[in-house]
Order: sequence, then C-alpha cells, then structure tokens
Amino acid sequence: MHPHTPRIGIIGSGAIGGFYGVMLARAGFDVHFLLRSEYQVVREQGLALDSAVHGKLLMKVQAYANAADMPACDWLLVGAKATSNDQLAPVIVQAAAPGAKVLLLQNGLGVEEQLRPALRGDMHLLGGLCFICVNRHAPGVIRHQALGAVNLGYHSGPAREGGAAVVREGAGLFQAAGIDSQAMPNLDLARWQKLVWNVPYNGLSVLLGEGTTGLMASSHSRALIQALMAEVVQGAGACGHVLPEGYAEHLFQMTERMPDYWPSMYHDYALMRPLELQAIYAEPLARARAAGCSLPRTEMLYQALSFLDDSDRPR
Amino acid sequence: MHPHTPRIGIIGSGAIGGFYGVMLARAGFDVHFLLRSEYQVVREQGLALDSAVHGKLLMKVQAYANAADMPACDWLLVGAKATSNDQLAPVIVQAAAPGAKVLLLQNGLGVEEQLRPALRGDMHLLGGLCFICVNRHAPGVIRHQALGAVNLGYHSGPAREGGAAVVREGAGLFQAAGIDSQAMPNLDLARWQKLVWNVPYNGLSVLLGEGTTGLMASSHSRALIQALMAEVVQGAGACGHVLPEGYAEHLFQMTERMPDYWPSMYHDYALMRPLELQAIYAEPLARARAAGCSLPRTEMLYQALSFLDDSDRPR
Repeated sequence: MHPHTPRIGIIGSGAIGGFYGVMLARAGFDVHFLLRSEYQVVREQGLALDSAVHGKLLMKVQAYANAADMPACDWLLVGAKATSNDQLAPVIVQAAAPGAKVLLLQNGLGVEEQLRPALRGDMHLLGGLCFICVNRHAPGVIRHQALGAVNLGYHSGPAREGGAAVVREGAGLFQAAGIDSQAMPNLDLARWQKLVWNVPYNGLSVLLGEGTTGLMASSHSRALIQALMAEVVQGAGACGHVLPEGYAEHLFQMTERMPDYWPSMYHDYALMRPLELQAIYAEPLARARAAGCSLPRTEMLYQALSFLDDSDRPR
Repeated sequence: MHPHTPRIGIIGSGAIGGFYGVMLARAGFDVHFLLRSEYQVVREQGLALDSAVHGKLLMKVQAYANAADMPACDWLLVGAKATSNDQLAPVIVQAAAPGAKVLLLQNGLGVEEQLRPALRGDMHLLGGLCFICVNRHAPGVIRHQALGAVNLGYHSGPAREGGAAVVREGAGLFQAAGIDSQAMPNLDLARWQKLVWNVPYNGLSVLLGEGTTGLMASSHSRALIQALMAEVVQGAGACGHVLPEGYAEHLFQMTERMPDYWPSMYHDYALMRPLELQAIYAEPLARARAAGCSLPRTEMLYQALSFLDDSDRPR
C-alpha cells in the first residue's frame, strides 16, 4: 500500500456502505468495515457483490465488530440509516484519524447538522448523494442493479475555501474505483436535487406497495410522481436552491430506464424498521414552510407515512 | 295495508338498502326487495338486522330475483353501488309504477346525471345522503353500529316548484319509520356536504388500512383528514355551494364519537370490488377544476386510490 493512500472506514455496511466499500477495496484502497448484525457472516465468508454492472465478486474484507478495534481512518463513509446517527456519533469519532473526513452517504436534509455537534473540530464533514439501485440481498450479500454515481458536497470543518479541495479528494477516491463522482459546490443544492427522486419514489413505494416499474406503469401514479417532483423543485427554489432546468424530467426519464427498483424505505417498512421520514420529508417541509412555501402533496405523503410508520413498528 | 300507503321497492339490498328497507317494512310499509347473490338466503331465512340502536330483528321479507316479478312500486330506493348504475337503469324502470319516485341512496356527485337519461319522463329522481354506520355482515345479515339519518334532495322529473313536496313525502316515509330525515332544498349542496366526510374517510381507510377509530387516533392522520375536509369545503364553495359555518368540524367531532367504522370503500377494496372513485373523487375534482379551484390533496388521494383500484382487481 502506498504510504499516502488514505485509510478508509465504512460505518454501517448495508447496501450502500457495502457496495462502495467493496468497490474501493477492489480498487486497492485500504478499507475497514465496521459491522453489527452481519459481523460473523462477513468475517467468515467475506462480502459478496452481485452487480449487473461490475459482475459477481466475493471479497475477503477487514471486518470489525467494535470501532475500538479499527485503525484510525482518514476517510469515514457512513452508509447507516440517518435514523441511527445519534448512536453512531461516538463510533465515528472513535474510528477517526486526526483531520479525518466524514462522508454521510445518506439522503434528505439536516443529517450533517444533527451529527456535527458530536464530532471533533479537526474533523471534516461532507455529504454524499448516491444515485444507485442497490439492496442488501442477504447477510453479507449486496445486489447492485444499476447506476452508482455519488455527488459530494462539503458541509463543515477546518477546510479553506468552502472545502473544495477536500470534496475533490473525495470524488477522486470514487473515480479511482471506477465510480462516477461529481464535486458539488453546494451541498444543500445537491441534497434538494436528490430529494426530487426520494420524495416521490421512497414514499409511494411504501404507500402503494410497488417498485419503480409498477409506479411508472400507471398514468395515475406517473401524474402523482410528477406533481410531487414539481413540489420539491418549488420547495428548493423557495429555499434559494434553483435546480437546473428540466432536472425533475431528467430523473423521471432515468427512472423509466431503470430496472424494477424497490427503494430502501420499502424494505424498511416491510421489515418494520423506522422510516427515514425526518430527513426526507419533515426537514424539507419545515424549511420550505419557513420560506413561505407550502408543499401539500409532500406533506400529505409525510402524514400518511408517519401514520404507517407509527402503526407498523412494535411499541 | 291502507290503500294510499306507497309501495316501496329496494334495489340492491346490501347494507344501505337492507337497513332502510327493513326499517320501513317494520313500520308497516309494503316493501319489496330485489336481490341478486343473496336472493336464496333472504328468501329462506329473511333479513336479519343487528342494530346497536334498534336491537336485533329477523324479518321475513318479500324477496325477488327478477324485477319482472315485482309489483309496480311508487318509491324505488337504490342502495346498490354507484358503479353499477348503468346496469341498474332498466331494472329500475321495470319496477317503477307510473310517476314513480326513484331515490339514489349513494354518495358522491353525478350519480343522478348518469342515470337520468335511462329513466322515463314521468319518473321523479331524488338523491339521498345517508349518515349511518352500517355494514353487510354476512349474506342476509346487516350490522348497524350507529346513526341513520338520511338527507333528501330533488334532482329532476315532472314535479313543480323544485320538487319540494316530493322531497317532503320521501322524508316523511323515513320519519314514519323512526329515522331522522331532512328535506334539503339543494341536492348538490347536500351531496357536497356528505363529501366532506366521504373524501377523507373512505379513501384513507383504503390507503392506510384503518377504520375511523384508528384514523382518529394519530395526530398525523387527524391533520390530514382536516386538510382534506377543508379542501372539499373549498371546492364546494368554488362550485357555488357555501357550506354551513363549522360544518367540517361538526363531521370531525361526530366521527370522534362514532364506534370504529370501516367505510364501504374499505370493504370494496378488501373484496377486490371496484371502488366508487368516479362519484366520490373524479367528479368533484372535475367540477372544482372547472370552477378554477385545485384540490391537491384530494387529487393525490384519487390518484393513489386509482392506482390501488387498478392493481387490486383481476383483469
């Protein structure tokens, strides 16, 4: 390993953490995986990636059950649910080398703000938006159906000039692993862009019990998806983030060409896990409302999902 | 039987037709029931009413499998689904005495307009809005949980002065059977009033899989119900029907005091029957839109229900 190669830690090795971690390890980076329920399986069998793009791969990885056992990492990629960021903060700090860069590969708004107070002042915090169809297929097995790009933006930390160099360094890691990655000058804009996809597809997959192919097959749901997308674009604009012309239509067309994808929120609901409603719905709604903009369909979707989330989980 | 007592025919003896038919027969009216799938059971066992208000009752009734076998009726109460009005029109005409009054005990808008062209010019057409918690419990068994009032309005026919006398006569039938009944000067206003209840509760019972008690137990669904009610009030106003001050709140409070009620749309969905989306959602949305009024939440609910309706039924 080259002495200047950064050491990368993966916190939460579900579909997202597992996929990007394996891709980085495959490219020769020194990658360390922190696992919880899948620790034993991955330690014994390795991580299996079944990718429609990159083929099948079974890789022995450096796996840990405790952050205390990990070496200090220069980059920490957080692929765990945003709903568990509270508990993750001490783990992230424990695994971080001085001046470490923490990259939250999570959707929605406000996830960095929630984590930031628990990090050290020397640590950089970035957000990453993944445009990818990937699911955890079984313990230690990741199924990658399509896409893969990651858009990065800087949130906060000791970097100069808005963190542009740090973001470029991060994008360079992904690019070196053969993954499209774009350095975004404005993290909030990048997050609103991704919400244009997440708000309709995540929620409707739960509410209507369908994957993207089913949702794109009916004129009723297509019209609803487009109306929800238009609301998110409107909310972003009200918050000062003007999205590129035709951006919603671009994501709609992209989804049309995707294989049938069931978003992670669908799986969370089916497995009675908490839904990421705060970051994907509540926070965007609150910010739009504070900017004087009401998003009635998005709010209705949030209310319906909150109802289902409350009645779904054992209390 | 008094010679001037009207003869009453019940077309579609599900929960609504069965309940009001039994109540009228119990009060001494000459009532004839046209049945389809439940004909054999009702002919042999009679109609059973299990009412939290009126007690238990098992009544032998005059049951028919074919309209051709029925005597000509002065009043025809139609309790069948609005989705089957097309097929019902010839049956209704066949059972109608000269100058018969046809009362559609159905929810939503446009149901009279759909049926009217198939009726004779001497026939009166009225609409009735039922505020009642009643379900078909088993073949020939009706379970009545609460309430029971019927609001009547005149649609069209040979009556003078807007049909007020005919409407009063109809209300008088129900009142003679111990049922609250109000003659409404404007049928469309009465229909919009009932929609304030149907739009939120019918649709959300399907979408969220809950009865009224569950829907009223969560702050999220309560806020959504109130927002949907406010939209319907707004749509009514745009169409020239100003609802009484506090009407939505009155229905919300009424529902709070109701036993757990699962609207008929929930049962239709569970049994894979077509949903009454045209009358309860599509037509009100179209009328509001034509009046320049958009109802985004109601439209979203309609789109979601249309999606579920399409994927629910075998094709």
